[in-house]
Amino acid sequence: MGPGETATPIDLDWAYQIGGLIAAENWILLTGGRNSGVMDAASRGAKAQNGLTLGILPTTTLEGVSEAVDIAIATGIHQARNNINVLSSNVIIACGMGLGTASEVALALKNQKPVVLLNTQATAYNFFSTLTRDRLFWTTTPEAAIQQVKRICH
Amino acid sequence: MGPGETATPIDLDWAYQIGGLIAAENWILLTGGRNSGVMDAASRGAKAQNGLTLGILPTTTLEGVSEAVDIAIATGIHQARNNINVLSSNVIIACGMGLGTASEVALALKNQKPVVLLNTQATAYNFFSTLTRDRLFWTTTPEAAIQQVKRICH
Amino acid sequence: MGPGETATPIDLDWAYQIGGLIAAENWILLTGGRNSGVMDAASRGAKAQNGLTLGILPTTTLEGVSEAVDIAIATGIHQARNNINVLSSNVIIACGMGLGTASEVALALKNQKPVVLLNTQATAYNFFSTLTRDRLFWTTTPEAAIQQVKRICH
Amino acid sequence: MGPGETATPIDLDWAYQIGGLIAAENWILLTGGRNSGVMDAASRGAKAQNGLTLGILPTTTLEGVSEAVDIAIATGIHQARNNINVLSSNVIIACGMGLGTASEVALALKNQKPVVLLNTQATAYNFFSTLTRDRLFWTTTPEAAIQQVKRICH
Repeated sequence: MGPGETATPIDLDWAYQIGGLIAAENWILLTGGRNSGVMDAASRGAKAQNGLTLGILPTTTLEGVSEAVDIAIATGIHQARNNINVLSSNVIIACGMGLGTASEVALALKNQKPVVLLNTQATAYNFFSTLTRDRLFWTTTPEAAIQQVKRICH
Repeated sequence: MGPGETATPIDLDWAYQIGGLIAAENWILLTGGRNSGVMDAASRGAKAQNGLTLGILPTTTLEGVSEAVDIAIATGIHQARNNINVLSSNVIIACGMGLGTASEVALALKNQKPVVLLNTQATAYNFFSTLTRDRLFWTTTPEAAIQQVKRICH
Repeated sequence: MGPGETATPIDLDWAYQIGGLIAAENWILLTGGRNSGVMDAASRGAKAQNGLTLGILPTTTLEGVSEAVDIAIATGIHQARNNINVLSSNVIIACGMGLGTASEVALALKNQKPVVLLNTQATAYNFFSTLTRDRLFWTTTPEAAIQQVKRICH
Repeated sequence: MGPGETATPIDLDWAYQIGGLIAAENWILLTGGRNSGVMDAASRGAKAQNGLTLGILPTTTLEGVSEAVDIAIATGIHQARNNINVLSSNVIIACGMGLGTASEVALALKNQKPVVLLNTQATAYNFFSTLTRDRLFWTTTPEAAIQQVKRICH
């Protein structure tokens, strides 16, 4: 998960790397599916490593889907699809931060899903830490994020 | 799409066949994902032919998912997920008929998605025919249903 | 519930009457909220009798809401809001029939909500009767529909 | 909007006051509808001033609804209903903070709805301020929150 149109160059670079690392682990990558920002970069990174990519779109059609998404779900439920994103994931990696990402981190923790923050400011970690002490992790490189996911799942 | 707990033996037999035929065409099978009725039988038929199966669950967790579903989406939106099922499909095959299936056929036609009815009574075809003359087809064997889908998509 | 743009003159006339009768009983009228067809006519009928009207919109904003809706909910979930319509109602009156209405009747019966059909063809009653024998009623005047609701609820 | 089971005594006290002030302005109070925390306290405060209260429930039935809710919507879409809460509101007042509240603040700002924070720590304001500079307000008393809403809407 991560920003769309407001993603920074580092968000995009690291999302691409995260996508590749997820594919290398033979995990399925789930994103918000649009042809924009972290969603698109992570999906492209996963496809470059022959991964399987799933995109959960807010729209009623496939218009605007990332070319790097293998399987697209057209939910037609707008930002309410953010709750589906987190319910359908085992672990959430938030690469960068935006308003949609913030809603996903909050919904994930609410649903007791582990969240690994990457490339976010201290203000984000500090804020979410005041709301729950469980299942929230802060990492500083794509490799460290993946290592954290492995510790969570094994 | 088709009935869950109320599926008939023929519904289940034909759903299993439909699943296998979909896999043989290298199409992705999308169902409601639960371990019950037509959803489960179609998914098992597809897996027997090494197909890829996708399940869109009504629930917030994977509890109750069919063992034959490769990729499960936990929507947490109850029967409202029926609209996601049809928005995310290119063509809907309704194998048998139940209340959930009827809602999916109606929503599919409302969204201008083609619907192929299989193993349904004349009352179903007659009813939906009064509501739209477009994109509604009635077939009498699994093979005929698949042939109809091929005519629609090519 | 009933057709939007495809409503017939009788659908609209009877929806207006139904709205007025609901208001006269001091019941709250819940519709799909748009400025079209049965939704709009029923809401106007209720307002003419000083009733309270609730509209559950498919859209993310209030654009297109009926002027006769007092309280509008912007769901942003497209036709998936049809399931909210039926879950939030005690009894569903279907005045006329369309594809959206058919999905609501099916979802209502699936959720064990009583459904009263008004101004629908025999094909509709016959079809839904094959799917459930419970909680489905067919009436021929607005007054009879309201009497049926009173029998159900008391 | 505000925490449910994790609400503090001050959250509850101020939510009750906010509900009363909303009713005194003849505004409609929309909450998440459950019989818990800020939702319940705000609704009770509004009813004590003869206000109109609306509750948007996550559940498929009315079980667990606050007694102080006049009109309840059973969405059946779980936490995805948080997006409906914000889409259907003109202004969001967040009284206290929890994970669900955080998702609502994020979704509200994402949808360009004004948000007034009340009884939240600096970490919350600081975090959301990094994501948007528009439409986010921080107040320190119930009266100040209502005054802020009046400045926004007039």
